[in-house]
Amino acid sequence: METTVSTVDNVWMMICTGLVFFMHLGFAFLEIGLTRQKNTINILFKNIFIITIGLILYALVGFNLMYPGSFSLGGVLPDYFVDLFGLSAPTVEGALDLSYNAGYTYWTDFLFQGMFAATAATIVSGAVAERIKLPSFMLFTILYVGLVYPIVGSWKWGTGFLDGWGFYDFAGSTLVHSVGGWAALVAVALLGARIGKFGKDGKPKAIPGHNIPLATAGVLILWLGWFGFNGGSVLSADPGLTSLVLVTTCLAAAAGGLASFFMSTILYKNYDLTMFLNGILGGLVGITAGADKMGITDAILIGLIAGVIIVLGVALIDKLKLDDPVGAIAVHLICGIWGTLAVGIFGELASLNQFLVQLAGVGIIGAFCVVTAFLFLFTIKKTIGLRVSKEEEVEGLDIHEHGMDAYPDFTLDQMS
Amino acid sequence: METTVSTVDNVWMMICTGLVFFMHLGFAFLEIGLTRQKNTINILFKNIFIITIGLILYALVGFNLMYPGSFSLGGVLPDYFVDLFGLSAPTVEGALDLSYNAGYTYWTDFLFQGMFAATAATIVSGAVAERIKLPSFMLFTILYVGLVYPIVGSWKWGTGFLDGWGFYDFAGSTLVHSVGGWAALVAVALLGARIGKFGKDGKPKAIPGHNIPLATAGVLILWLGWFGFNGGSVLSADPGLTSLVLVTTCLAAAAGGLASFFMSTILYKNYDLTMFLNGILGGLVGITAGADKMGITDAILIGLIAGVIIVLGVALIDKLKLDDPVGAIAVHLICGIWGTLAVGIFGELASLNQFLVQLAGVGIIGAFCVVTAFLFLFTIKKTIGLRVSKEEEVEGLDIHEHGMDAYPDFTLDQMS
Amino acid sequence: METTVSTVDNVWMMICTGLVFFMHLGFAFLEIGLTRQKNTINILFKNIFIITIGLILYALVGFNLMYPGSFSLGGVLPDYFVDLFGLSAPTVEGALDLSYNAGYTYWTDFLFQGMFAATAATIVSGAVAERIKLPSFMLFTILYVGLVYPIVGSWKWGTGFLDGWGFYDFAGSTLVHSVGGWAALVAVALLGARIGKFGKDGKPKAIPGHNIPLATAGVLILWLGWFGFNGGSVLSADPGLTSLVLVTTCLAAAAGGLASFFMSTILYKNYDLTMFLNGILGGLVGITAGADKMGITDAILIGLIAGVIIVLGVALIDKLKLDDPVGAIAVHLICGIWGTLAVGIFGELASLNQFLVQLAGVGIIGAFCVVTAFLFLFTIKKTIGLRVSKEEEVEGLDIHEHGMDAYPDFTLDQMS
Repeated sequence: METTVSTVDNVWMMICTGLVFFMHLGFAFLEIGLTRQKNTINILFKNIFIITIGLILYALVGFNLMYPGSFSLGGVLPDYFVDLFGLSAPTVEGALDLSYNAGYTYWTDFLFQGMFAATAATIVSGAVAERIKLPSFMLFTILYVGLVYPIVGSWKWGTGFLDGWGFYDFAGSTLVHSVGGWAALVAVALLGARIGKFGKDGKPKAIPGHNIPLATAGVLILWLGWFGFNGGSVLSADPGLTSLVLVTTCLAAAAGGLASFFMSTILYKNYDLTMFLNGILGGLVGITAGADKMGITDAILIGLIAGVIIVLGVALIDKLKLDDPVGAIAVHLICGIWGTLAVGIFGELASLNQFLVQLAGVGIIGAFCVVTAFLFLFTIKKTIGLRVSKEEEVEGLDIHEHGMDAYPDFTLDQMS
Repeated sequence: METTVSTVDNVWMMICTGLVFFMHLGFAFLEIGLTRQKNTINILFKNIFIITIGLILYALVGFNLMYPGSFSLGGVLPDYFVDLFGLSAPTVEGALDLSYNAGYTYWTDFLFQGMFAATAATIVSGAVAERIKLPSFMLFTILYVGLVYPIVGSWKWGTGFLDGWGFYDFAGSTLVHSVGGWAALVAVALLGARIGKFGKDGKPKAIPGHNIPLATAGVLILWLGWFGFNGGSVLSADPGLTSLVLVTTCLAAAAGGLASFFMSTILYKNYDLTMFLNGILGGLVGITAGADKMGITDAILIGLIAGVIIVLGVALIDKLKLDDPVGAIAVHLICGIWGTLAVGIFGELASLNQFLVQLAGVGIIGAFCVVTAFLFLFTIKKTIGLRVSKEEEVEGLDIHEHGMDAYPDFTLDQMS
Repeated sequence: METTVSTVDNVWMMICTGLVFFMHLGFAFLEIGLTRQKNTINILFKNIFIITIGLILYALVGFNLMYPGSFSLGGVLPDYFVDLFGLSAPTVEGALDLSYNAGYTYWTDFLFQGMFAATAATIVSGAVAERIKLPSFMLFTILYVGLVYPIVGSWKWGTGFLDGWGFYDFAGSTLVHSVGGWAALVAVALLGARIGKFGKDGKPKAIPGHNIPLATAGVLILWLGWFGFNGGSVLSADPGLTSLVLVTTCLAAAAGGLASFFMSTILYKNYDLTMFLNGILGGLVGITAGADKMGITDAILIGLIAGVIIVLGVALIDKLKLDDPVGAIAVHLICGIWGTLAVGIFGELASLNQFLVQLAGVGIIGAFCVVTAFLFLFTIKKTIGLRVSKEEEVEGLDIHEHGMDAYPDFTLDQMS
């Protein structure tokens, strides 16, 4: 009886794992699509590195650090000892112990969570594109994905102190998206803008992305991946909850896109595809914290507001002279915060108390991420350096670091 | 007990929902791949608009209009009142009522059907590409997806009068593909051909698609999506039926492709990849009406004939001086009709009586679609206009309506 | 009771079938991405042909030949009679007999295996790209996929003599990947290198691939497809086994990529994305033979070694003056052999005896593949010819055989 239920739950979780894995193609397409061709290989290399090292690190360290079983310092410091190094599945008489939890197996749990882990660094990757040194980025990824992500995750999903406070983050508006977004903010501030991004008058100049079809494909792939990201965060195949989550997710995405489209059309008199796409992502990030606690109207409203936030957020980041080529900070950080706070405003959990707990969680995690990201990145900057040479940036990272062109058979414009 | 069955059915339906969603990337890739680079952003914008507005419209209006519970005028007019506006899931003591139907939940039902709804407009999008005004297309989409698609759907899938007559359309050769195809035909006729499509001698001139790898990817993604489109139309995870449907679907696709390949190689002495691809799509559309009622030989024959139809249909449309850049009319309208009639010729339901009912359904739905599409499009043409200016068409819609290039880093040919 | 279990197993197997189908897009992207733009249409045509003819052939001949029920000549010659032509599902009272096997239906079994069948030819396609005659390749595909693949498969998966010996190949390191790899080796030797691949001094010259983003996407799609390739080879949704297989598969992929990356960075002082990608594929092929029998450390070690093998293998093939544009021989043949032997070295089955049986299986299948591939290809070479004319090769197969450009709107470099 139990085994049957377990099988169907496990199948659902494995499918969701595959979908979250597939998001890495979405991120890669979005990021290269919105940047220049001369840095394409470099970006793809970073993304492939993140997936591979992310999984291995999560097997060696992350999984046990994030779900430590017990904590010290009142739920702040996961009890992580050397004997937790690597994976050790619970077994009964030599076979995998299927009673480990109600629905799916230890291995499924590891792989689903492992696919999430790499996402934090992927978010950073987009924001720092076209100017960061590859070894510096790789070093930062190892530290941030290996340590910061699982420690923050342990505070809520690993039943640490934020979970004790009643902080709610269903699938990671804060625990995944903002964690990546804060590091993106710090990195962009430390790196500085790309050459040519801000004119002598200080006004931002658009640096157009070189492959908009792939950027669009990236967003549709990410949307599909969110079926697994949010659908799998139910942690079972419960029919009522999983299907509700897919509906709130899709409606928030649609509403977010439409809001960004209308808002930017009104403001800029232009049918801006990139804004439409980022609005969809904003809606997706926004619904992620409370996708299982929202009704239909709540989901649409959260998405609509996220879409407005995206348009304003992108303008704000430009105004702050921060250069974020793909809009990662607006999408993942600002909409991540919005989605987390929205749990206290809309849906089942809405209350002033919940709102304040959400705010506290956002603040504490934000502070921890900013401090650790700054420590890592500042140290790297002062030692091996963070940014490529001016010559390399102008000529492109592909030729300098990889000795390759992304599209060698095509004639390219001089300036790009 | 019941809940267990429901869980597995629901999981299957959710997966199929995701696959049908993913078809939108397939349509987008196919459409941009087969048209010129200067209109790429415009096409992607249309496609993203269709998905987002389609879902929101289906939540507000379409779902209830298509499954109204009761009808007036003898099964023709769905009883749709103001209190059906929006979604209202059946609940028991505050939770989703899982007894609502045998297999999957209200939310899954909505989302699966909602993913279908947008497809009708997507089919039109391909046929009118490279010359339709964006606001005009968006207005038409809202009317056609919001009203025509669900009303036609209600006649069969919502248990209206065609269902009463015994009309059979398993997954929508008529209800989805022809509904889109008829509107594409009307739109193409009202719009006229692209500049340069027909020479002064009236002979058609090929306007080559600008990105054949993406067009090919689009077809493979659509084929994958059809696993969900047809597989999910079983409306349960019934092992015998779902697996039979996947087999008939894949064999018809393969046979359709091979038939188009052989036919066009014989006729034109050329290995024509586009024809091969459209043959696959023709086979898929052709099997869709009866995928659950066909044996293996039936499926292969339906596919083979669909493949032949594609080659002849594309030639016919050229001869009629209709300009359909992606072959949408041959694929979705002609093969949609073929597939619907084939239910009366091959497989379990084959009989003269069934054939006549199928014919009647095709005719009635065709008449309704042509009349409504004409009404909408003609009104739009006479008011805000349907076609972009000559200058805009020549220079490309991307620069004029969106102020963006799809591939700004690449040097492009003058003429394209 | 039984039906419920069957439903969930069947759902999992259908999903895996879809994922293996999707691998064909991965192969297509990888292959065009790593070759020149002038042969893109040709490569896509080959790939689409393989999928369509592969499925039809498997329905007509392959499935029954591979699972014949009984053998002659001591398990070597499948008993395949004329009455086994085509598919004939077992039925009970007119409906599909669901008791046919413990988990999934006859149709699912056919389609899952059918998706595998075409893969063997796809592997060859990459190695012979940019110079093989299309009709010759199509003829070879029909013979190899229609006969060689299912006969070899019958020896193990169809319970022939290698199965009797205890040869183990979980998902086809040998039965799929090496079978394709051996033919690739023979074909490359018979075809000769592309013009310009080896300089007058005999030194290999890199011919860069024209679309690295699509090549990268291909690898990520293949990795996703391997969830179904290996996950489905459990032949049930057994939670413990399927989830273990996904974990070993993903960790071997990650380890393989990282090993190739480090190795090539050390050897060539260059961050080589193509090597990173091929390392991932090497890890995937390497784990395939024993994915269900390995622990975590085993999987990582198998992947790491596969990654090293890739770097050395690519250098070796260059040294042998063999021209394999996509690295198919290193990935599918050499890592296929490695993975098969690794079953005797690591994990549950490790023993000297098992190692020797694995070695025997590799040798016998290798001999059979080399002989049959040589017979087919040599005959083709001496009759209709194997290689296009020098003029066609220089100007590109797309224009000559297809009269089409893959990217007609773009300005292309003279030399490419």
